Amino acid sequence: MTHIRSMIDTYPKDLGDLELTKLAQCISACFECAQTCTACADACLAEDMVADLAKCIRTNLDCADICAATGNVLSRRTGFDPNVTRALLEACRAACKSCGDECEQHAGMHDHCQVCAEACRRCEKACADLMTSLA
Amino acid sequence: MTHIRSMIDTYPKDLGDLELTKLAQCISACFECAQTCTACADACLAEDMVADLAKCIRTNLDCADICAATGNVLSRRTGFDPNVTRALLEACRAACKSCGDECEQHAGMHDHCQVCAEACRRCEKACADLMTSLA
Amino acid sequence: MTHIRSMIDTYPKDLGDLELTKLAQCISACFECAQTCTACADACLAEDMVADLAKCIRTNLDCADICAATGNVLSRRTGFDPNVTRALLEACRAACKSCGDECEQHAGMHDHCQVCAEACRRCEKACADLMTSLA
Amino acid sequence: MTHIRSMIDTYPKDLGDLELTKLAQCISACFECAQTCTACADACLAEDMVADLAKCIRTNLDCADICAATGNVLSRRTGFDPNVTRALLEACRAACKSCGDECEQHAGMHDHCQVCAEACRRCEKACADLMTSLA
Repeated sequence: MTHIRSMIDTYPKDLGDLELTKLAQCISACFECAQTCTACADACLAEDMVADLAKCIRTNLDCADICAATGNVLSRRTGFDPNVTRALLEACRAACKSCGDECEQHAGMHDHCQVCAEACRRCEKACADLMTSLA
Repeated sequence: MTHIRSMIDTYPKDLGDLELTKLAQCISACFECAQTCTACADACLAEDMVADLAKCIRTNLDCADICAATGNVLSRRTGFDPNVTRALLEACRAACKSCGDECEQHAGMHDHCQVCAEACRRCEKACADLMTSLA
Repeated sequence: MTHIRSMIDTYPKDLGDLELTKLAQCISACFECAQTCTACADACLAEDMVADLAKCIRTNLDCADICAATGNVLSRRTGFDPNVTRALLEACRAACKSCGDECEQHAGMHDHCQVCAEACRRCEKACADLMTSLA
Repeated sequence: MTHIRSMIDTYPKDLGDLELTKLAQCISACFECAQTCTACADACLAEDMVADLAKCIRTNLDCADICAATGNVLSRRTGFDPNVTRALLEACRAACKSCGDECEQHAGMHDHCQVCAEACRRCEKACADLMTSLA
């Protein structure tokens, strides 16, 4: 996460009164969750019981797309739009909750779903925390 | 848009009672808007007055990321989650409204902003229409 | 594809001696292929025999990611870098060939793989054509 | 990078003879570079001299797209295709070199370009190292 914080700290203009630690944590959680969901979808594909994991794979793929978009939007400070940011954080929180719930159901059987559920929970919480600070 | 509809029509399972024409139109509008916003950000970068277009470029980049993620999520039918879909459509509608409003301000001066504002309005409306059909 | 051409035609600076029709066709083919591959991965997930389609799904997901990145890069004209563009077109051509080969093997059994194989072949050819014009 | 390694270690099938430390380092470098380039494009947009940074912004945006796609492809192990992977690593290496070269020119004046140049160099090297191990 060092580079995320370095890029925030070298931004040339005023960053407003956003809580920068929460911002950096949320960006980090979004990209961590995106990568983990992409890898979890792939690990599910390699399971013998893949037919039982179709919904899990789909939820992983959605969560990866939404977390990556959210991480990108949060990485931009110029011309910040709180309405778009808030709506996207809400969508990201919903996707992480949905994927965390799904992966948790398989966490006892598949270690990759356990790791993924934890990344989803962290990102769900980071989005909720940042939304509070935006309000 | 032919290929979007072909992929919907060859999906192997029941698609539920979703309005498939609205779905296909929204997927098409999302990817059209994503590409147009990516190109509009680049065209703004090439303008002599780029310093006045910084907010427009940022809004374009956000809109492109959110529309692409929304187009991907809508392209999946397996294990459909109406909560995640609805929250993402709301974020996409907000991003398209924000970008359409911004580009419209420069539409008289920059033809690419005129084309982009139209793509944003189409996508904003397509998201709103699909949300109604999801309710 | 109208909007792709409109954005090329409203670009404010000189576009060099690139063949613009080939460029527009390649951008269009990239986004068409990305969407089709995303939908094909999802349709494969919904097949009863999904266990036999794991490699197809993975190839779809890679092809979607690479085509989307290529479509974005080709949509930018400012500060054009022929080396990066050529290397990416080569990667995109390889991904489309790999995915077209894979989907063709299932095209007789799964209509979505037939549609997807066609989108991959169009994009493979469009990348090859544009590379010739870059040389 | 902990989660990247955890997902590799919980993958349910044999991973072949790929050097897993190099793989994890390259995935990590790709996503770090993608985020840094996204933030650097935004920081450049906020500079008073943005007109002089148009090429830098474009190079950042391309590098971000290509690194994100490469990070995704490398995060998948099922049905691994060395040809596609190698071609994409080559494109990613070229994009990182181009962006590192560009950002280095502004590194004395803009701290964000200094941070970004370092992320690009790390990713350029990680792609080259992984290609050697794929050969």
